[in-house]
Amino acid sequence: MTPTITAFAQSPDRGRGLARDMRLRWALEEVGQPYDVRLLTMEEMKQPAHLALNPFGQIPTYEDGDLALFESGAIILQIATQHPGLLPDDPAARARAIEWMFAALNTVEPPIVARSMATITERDEPWYDARLPILTERVNTRLRALSARLGEADWLDGEFSAGDLLMVNVLERAKAMDMLADYPNLDAYVARAEARPAFRRAFDAQRAVFTAAMSG
Amino acid sequence: MTPTITAFAQSPDRGRGLARDMRLRWALEEVGQPYDVRLLTMEEMKQPAHLALNPFGQIPTYEDGDLALFESGAIILQIATQHPGLLPDDPAARARAIEWMFAALNTVEPPIVARSMATITERDEPWYDARLPILTERVNTRLRALSARLGEADWLDGEFSAGDLLMVNVLERAKAMDMLADYPNLDAYVARAEARPAFRRAFDAQRAVFTAAMSG
Ligand SMILES: N[C@@H](CCC(=O)N[C@@H](CS)C(=O)NCC(=O)O)C(=O)O
Ligand SMILES: N[C@@H](CCC(=O)N[C@@H](CS)C(=O)NCC(=O)O)C(=O)O
Repeated sequence: MTPTITAFAQSPDRGRGLARDMRLRWALEEVGQPYDVRLLTMEEMKQPAHLALNPFGQIPTYEDGDLALFESGAIILQIATQHPGLLPDDPAARARAIEWMFAALNTVEPPIVARSMATITERDEPWYDARLPILTERVNTRLRALSARLGEADWLDGEFSAGDLLMVNVLERAKAMDMLADYPNLDAYVARAEARPAFRRAFDAQRAVFTAAMSG
Repeated sequence: MTPTITAFAQSPDRGRGLARDMRLRWALEEVGQPYDVRLLTMEEMKQPAHLALNPFGQIPTYEDGDLALFESGAIILQIATQHPGLLPDDPAARARAIEWMFAALNTVEPPIVARSMATITERDEPWYDARLPILTERVNTRLRALSARLGEADWLDGEFSAGDLLMVNVLERAKAMDMLADYPNLDAYVARAEARPAFRRAFDAQRAVFTAAMSG
């Protein structure tokens, strides 16, 4: 049974891999699981059919036989539970990999998304110049801590895991704001992950949606 | 072996149960697992000993034998995996309960925390009055969707689960900002959870820390 994910028909990031279907595609590629994609317009995302899958009217979602899930973190945990390759077998190491998944989504992502969103929605507000440094510092507080913890290691805790996958995916948005240059080890960490064949296949697949929309 | 969690020696919420040790205490009470608490000052949280436990220098953390974890979501998932009572046995229902854990932490909590933080840190900024309605609407967007999904049900998906525990805990911060009054079913949902004996025991335990600090 091939699972189906949803993604933007027209992603606001124009195929740069910043929409949250990218992390699902990447996880599915890492474990070698083929998948189908259903593309949705912003309008379709707010219709009852999609709200039944995700009450918040967002992408991505995941359907696999009788199971329907939303929340990228939960979907990746499900994929990692069903297939070897994204979580260690040792229970303690597994719990720590899952800890990094939550750290990516609940500690590192929120300030990055807040700053990124402000650069789009608040750019013309009179307070933009005064607030931006505050938002920047909140991101740097997290990046400093993460950089110090990663040190010279390749991955956050032993082998590459779903925790690295989510952390790198979250850092991509900081990279898109040119905020990784001060953290050479985080920059190298992201580059190391981007060099994985599964990342490339996932990136190319989401990019193809943008290219097709452009040419069609 | 009794696990140890960390909490604020002097919680900025003054014992109202809004600090993130509350959700761990509650989960531990739900499954009947006794625990020890190590209290930390803000300064101690940024020292090497605590940074080894949580690189972001925050509470809560969790130590159980050889396993040390940070991230409240990961810790609750660990507790729910080790003990019956917080996640259904059926694999699909279990995945959906975990989905609600991520929804609480990655979709509902960020706008609530953003608004709550702004009411503290931006209250005296010249842009406060102009920005507050924007932050309020972001919270309401999530509360409307959650209220519509919950409907007349007692819990988000069948029996009470770790997904409800985290969602209610996240909603407590919206309630503290008087933002649940427009959503009677969410208000009742939080009240229903607060009536659980495990919630009361956890609330009283974190409150006792504040009371002791006051009187001592
Ligand atoms: N916490 C959710 C967030 C999902 C999310 O923010 N999706 C964005 C696209 S990357 C979206 O659908 N935005 C459109 C909207 O919110 O209306 C997850 O991780 O799945
Ligand atoms: N994503 C983390 C967030 C932890 C967090 O925000 N902790 C707060 C207390 S509730 C804290 O330690 N704040 C002090 C600080 O960040 O310096 C989790 O869920 O455990």
